Amino acid sequence: MAGVISLITDFGLRDEYAGVMKGVILSISAKSTIVDITHGIGPQNIREAALVLESSYPYFPRTTVHVVVVDPGVGSERRIIAAAAAGQLFLAPDNGVLTPILGSARLERAHLVSNRSLFRHPVSCTFHGRDIFAPVAARLAGGLALAEIGEAVRQEDLVQLPMPQPIEDEKEQVLSGEIIAVDHFGNLLTNIDAPLLAAKTSAWSTACRVELRGATIEGVRLSYQSVGPGELLALLGSRNRLEIAVNGGSAAHHLQASVGEGVRVLFRRAAG
Amino acid sequence: MAGVISLITDFGLRDEYAGVMKGVILSISAKSTIVDITHGIGPQNIREAALVLESSYPYFPRTTVHVVVVDPGVGSERRIIAAAAAGQLFLAPDNGVLTPILGSARLERAHLVSNRSLFRHPVSCTFHGRDIFAPVAARLAGGLALAEIGEAVRQEDLVQLPMPQPIEDEKEQVLSGEIIAVDHFGNLLTNIDAPLLAAKTSAWSTACRVELRGATIEGVRLSYQSVGPGELLALLGSRNRLEIAVNGGSAAHHLQASVGEGVRVLFRRAAG
Amino acid sequence: MAGVISLITDFGLRDEYAGVMKGVILSISAKSTIVDITHGIGPQNIREAALVLESSYPYFPRTTVHVVVVDPGVGSERRIIAAAAAGQLFLAPDNGVLTPILGSARLERAHLVSNRSLFRHPVSCTFHGRDIFAPVAARLAGGLALAEIGEAVRQEDLVQLPMPQPIEDEKEQVLSGEIIAVDHFGNLLTNIDAPLLAAKTSAWSTACRVELRGATIEGVRLSYQSVGPGELLALLGSRNRLEIAVNGGSAAHHLQASVGEGVRVLFRRAAG
Repeated sequence: MAGVISLITDFGLRDEYAGVMKGVILSISAKSTIVDITHGIGPQNIREAALVLESSYPYFPRTTVHVVVVDPGVGSERRIIAAAAAGQLFLAPDNGVLTPILGSARLERAHLVSNRSLFRHPVSCTFHGRDIFAPVAARLAGGLALAEIGEAVRQEDLVQLPMPQPIEDEKEQVLSGEIIAVDHFGNLLTNIDAPLLAAKTSAWSTACRVELRGATIEGVRLSYQSVGPGELLALLGSRNRLEIAVNGGSAAHHLQASVGEGVRVLFRRAAG
Repeated sequence: MAGVISLITDFGLRDEYAGVMKGVILSISAKSTIVDITHGIGPQNIREAALVLESSYPYFPRTTVHVVVVDPGVGSERRIIAAAAAGQLFLAPDNGVLTPILGSARLERAHLVSNRSLFRHPVSCTFHGRDIFAPVAARLAGGLALAEIGEAVRQEDLVQLPMPQPIEDEKEQVLSGEIIAVDHFGNLLTNIDAPLLAAKTSAWSTACRVELRGATIEGVRLSYQSVGPGELLALLGSRNRLEIAVNGGSAAHHLQASVGEGVRVLFRRAAG
Repeated sequence: MAGVISLITDFGLRDEYAGVMKGVILSISAKSTIVDITHGIGPQNIREAALVLESSYPYFPRTTVHVVVVDPGVGSERRIIAAAAAGQLFLAPDNGVLTPILGSARLERAHLVSNRSLFRHPVSCTFHGRDIFAPVAARLAGGLALAEIGEAVRQEDLVQLPMPQPIEDEKEQVLSGEIIAVDHFGNLLTNIDAPLLAAKTSAWSTACRVELRGATIEGVRLSYQSVGPGELLALLGSRNRLEIAVNGGSAAHHLQASVGEGVRVLFRRAAG
């Protein structure tokens, strides 16, 4: 047995870091299939890594080992966690990048990564991706039980990232959220998700309007093509979140908007 | 059986989009070998994707499934095509990206991608790469017949991209073409190909000169090293097209030239 | 048998070049596992490629074939070398990129790549990655003996890159080196390595100080976390070299330093 190992790091693609991790993995588990999710996380941007993990892990085969090496605390006392959730495995520093699988019914169990006999020696203080994450991931992909990695740890003892929550003004029928990511196409991803919108209205295309940076967008659509080329729209994107986009263009450029910017959704009262 | 799947997209490498497609593919066809040709196509640049496909597919194993997701029409009524050509398979929106395998004797057959039982559900309106292209590619790589994908479609009903054609002035012995791509090294790729030049002369190195942006280049060479370091040259590159290059440098930078720029090849009359 | 093939090139990721090499490899050796170490070497930067090779090859499985295509001399008379060293295989132009496995006891044997029956035909003069390196690498990964590639060549006849050596002023207890690379995080890698430092002192954290660009750094550490956030430090990094870094930041940005910049290490005399 040798399954899929996915990698999310902030290593970039110019240096040899990701390649070296793959060399170590293949030295232990020659039949592993390694998938780069991204090495383009902003340096040490834990929140961005958590969002990418949330948007990608559900689409991988059962027992995939997802390795996240965005690790500003490397060499300090921060812990490394191996966890099982939603039928898959996760290996990451205990710094909040695993938030998407915590705080819900998803997590099955979590263990500290403490069994040093699984590490590459000598263990450097600056490249645990090579010396700890890669060899442990290879063993997990080969079927090693979590209990062999280290002692069990309780979910409530793990670092969880506070995600900015939308604020709902019941009376005014307003949801106030924010932009949490901007993708390669300039689409603006918000922290307002589909269930939250669905709780307010099922008539998305007519019953609400979206405001940000002085622009007003009528209705929430399902496809870029529902407006004309170059036009701004609000849509429920493939990540089940409210996104702001431009058909055939970049909303980030159009609105000069970036992460942290506020977004408001205003719902019309149903006629009496 | 599980073959090679190649990917050409405009997704970039920062987001999780390409990784998610791989997750879906491996969930269905665990033994597939996935090759990234590029995720760096300019956003929604169909012509660029067609050129990359043309320059890459002939070098892949038989029955490779080439998936092109450069898809400005995602979510609209645009069709998706699965085609067989030159012993290989192709999966792409019907927007012109498959032009390199059309308009010639290459195409063997083409089918609409309409069998929804092959898709991932629910099918989003914004990420068909994940919900349609990836699962269908995985099935094709696993040996599913094109006829199972959807109804056959005639070649003449498929969108074909008009490629800018060089103009030949018979009397003046001049070919007027243009730059159609600029590569990572700053080499300028033109729409004048080897057969066209060969029809004019076999004495490339002496019988013609190339003009663009006020520069005059004598002769067409076969290697960068045939001129001195830093010197401009015209050559028949590895893609069998006339290219303008600088030995050890960037012609794009040297000439401040970009896509769309005109290029003229002037042939000398044979001495009478 | 079909092993691992690693790729180090200056092709970038926007064009199809690396993907085409993979297509050719998989056409010959369908079971190969291909690992991108990097395609982000600066165009024709042989020294950078040599450093990346040095930092990556030791972490790969035995008999991995490491292919380096940073090849400003493509199409000229420069030779291509296949070599065995440290239990692994190497394929590269004879231009100095293989320096890390020369000049030591590492090299086991080297052969010219001259057996044209192994090449893709016609062999272009501009893309030997596709026409020579890829097919020969595929055969080596499949177990072909070096002797089948071409005639043996002596190590002393191979091009070796002069690496800038640190200068030691015995009396003044000063090592003068330089920055040889800057990584994605802005860490500054020097040509002063761990054995050289170890020969001077074992009390790294107290017995020396590092100077560059007017900044003075006390002591050599082992982890970024040994100083406060945003603070400059000198450390022995994961590549066993003296590096200059900023905890949670970029030393390159902090010091406005780049490759070639001088670095001095000053050792204190032991009290007498």
